Amino acid sequence: MMIPRTGIGVDVHAFGEEGTELWVAGLHWPGQRGLSGHSDGDVVAHAAADALFSASGTGDLGSNFGVDRPDMAGASGVRILSEAAAIVRAAGFEIGNIAVQLVGNKPKFSPRRDEANAVLSEAASAPVTVTATTTDALGLTGRGEGVAAIATALVYPA
Amino acid sequence: MMIPRTGIGVDVHAFGEEGTELWVAGLHWPGQRGLSGHSDGDVVAHAAADALFSASGTGDLGSNFGVDRPDMAGASGVRILSEAAAIVRAAGFEIGNIAVQLVGNKPKFSPRRDEANAVLSEAASAPVTVTATTTDALGLTGRGEGVAAIATALVYPA
Amino acid sequence: MMIPRTGIGVDVHAFGEEGTELWVAGLHWPGQRGLSGHSDGDVVAHAAADALFSASGTGDLGSNFGVDRPDMAGASGVRILSEAAAIVRAAGFEIGNIAVQLVGNKPKFSPRRDEANAVLSEAASAPVTVTATTTDALGLTGRGEGVAAIATALVYPA
Repeated sequence: MMIPRTGIGVDVHAFGEEGTELWVAGLHWPGQRGLSGHSDGDVVAHAAADALFSASGTGDLGSNFGVDRPDMAGASGVRILSEAAAIVRAAGFEIGNIAVQLVGNKPKFSPRRDEANAVLSEAASAPVTVTATTTDALGLTGRGEGVAAIATALVYPA
Repeated sequence: MMIPRTGIGVDVHAFGEEGTELWVAGLHWPGQRGLSGHSDGDVVAHAAADALFSASGTGDLGSNFGVDRPDMAGASGVRILSEAAAIVRAAGFEIGNIAVQLVGNKPKFSPRRDEANAVLSEAASAPVTVTATTTDALGLTGRGEGVAAIATALVYPA
Repeated sequence: MMIPRTGIGVDVHAFGEEGTELWVAGLHWPGQRGLSGHSDGDVVAHAAADALFSASGTGDLGSNFGVDRPDMAGASGVRILSEAAAIVRAAGFEIGNIAVQLVGNKPKFSPRRDEANAVLSEAASAPVTVTATTTDALGLTGRGEGVAAIATALVYPA
């Protein structure tokens, strides 16, 4: 009997300076203020990667891509997700799926959902589906201070 | 080997005007201020529906029940969950279960848990279980600005 | 065909008075201000227990460990998780895994991850994996008002 494992990951980034570039869900969003962070601030990709680490018990973003991995400094969300998937597979798991919800006022996600799903699924070599919602003008995302993402992932022994 | 898929959905609604009706988890809560929103503001049903869309990769609440579906304008939470389940099944998935946590100070949920589980399980034609918690007076729910819900769902190929 | 069930649990506790003891993820964190609450305020253990109840449809922390269980008043997080696992198994489920993410500025979790995973996995008699993140100085956890945890669990019929 195959027993899958589930995992969870949340990420939050504040909006950065005017003139920075916005990257969310593996996509560039031209003309919109970027998210702060050492990397591109892609909350969707980061939450997805952390959900994979969570499900497989292989640490988290900080422990995998911190000071021991200078090659990952400033890495894009797509690269982070791709590396996370490789680490999880090397630990003996296959990836069933990853589901991520973007929580925030911007960017307007729906028109680019198929594009995001394709880019992130290719990065993870597994199905990634992205949804989006807002929080009725409440909380850190509703006030426009930043953007959040929450992800769950299912993995199973390879 | 059957590989299930997991999904996630968050929803937040602010409390509305005095005198509005409160609907949460498919139930009417008499004498309590309602939640704002184009619909009945049922955060539990909405989070459940979004978790189903998330798991199955069939879009989200906005893309399924937006301007293309005028028949769903103002639809109740129960109807939204029921329609979401139908869409997910039409896409080739069966629903294993949906689990939702209500996060907020009101309503006092526990006495009506069995009733809520029954109404929502009937709407989805699948097991729906609802839990509740508070946030120690912190954040948007702790300050009583609104109510949140977070859901996960498991689906599998039919 | 074995159909597993997924569940979700969120918990938030405010920081308490100076001089209280901090317990998070089943571990004592010497020299750090504690979390408020009737119990030890262990958000990680509480979220894990609620995710188990959520997945199995056996109520929630409040309904299981409230006034009907005076023996659980002030119980530690480890004891709460252990009792929750026993309740879920008594209801006919086996526990596949529990994954929890700690969300907050303190404590600095990563150096004690293995220790936390071991203590909580022993409490649940099932694999528990803990990750950690911050929220870029935003929201209740970013402002240091408190600490949150979010968990998912997978259970299946025994």
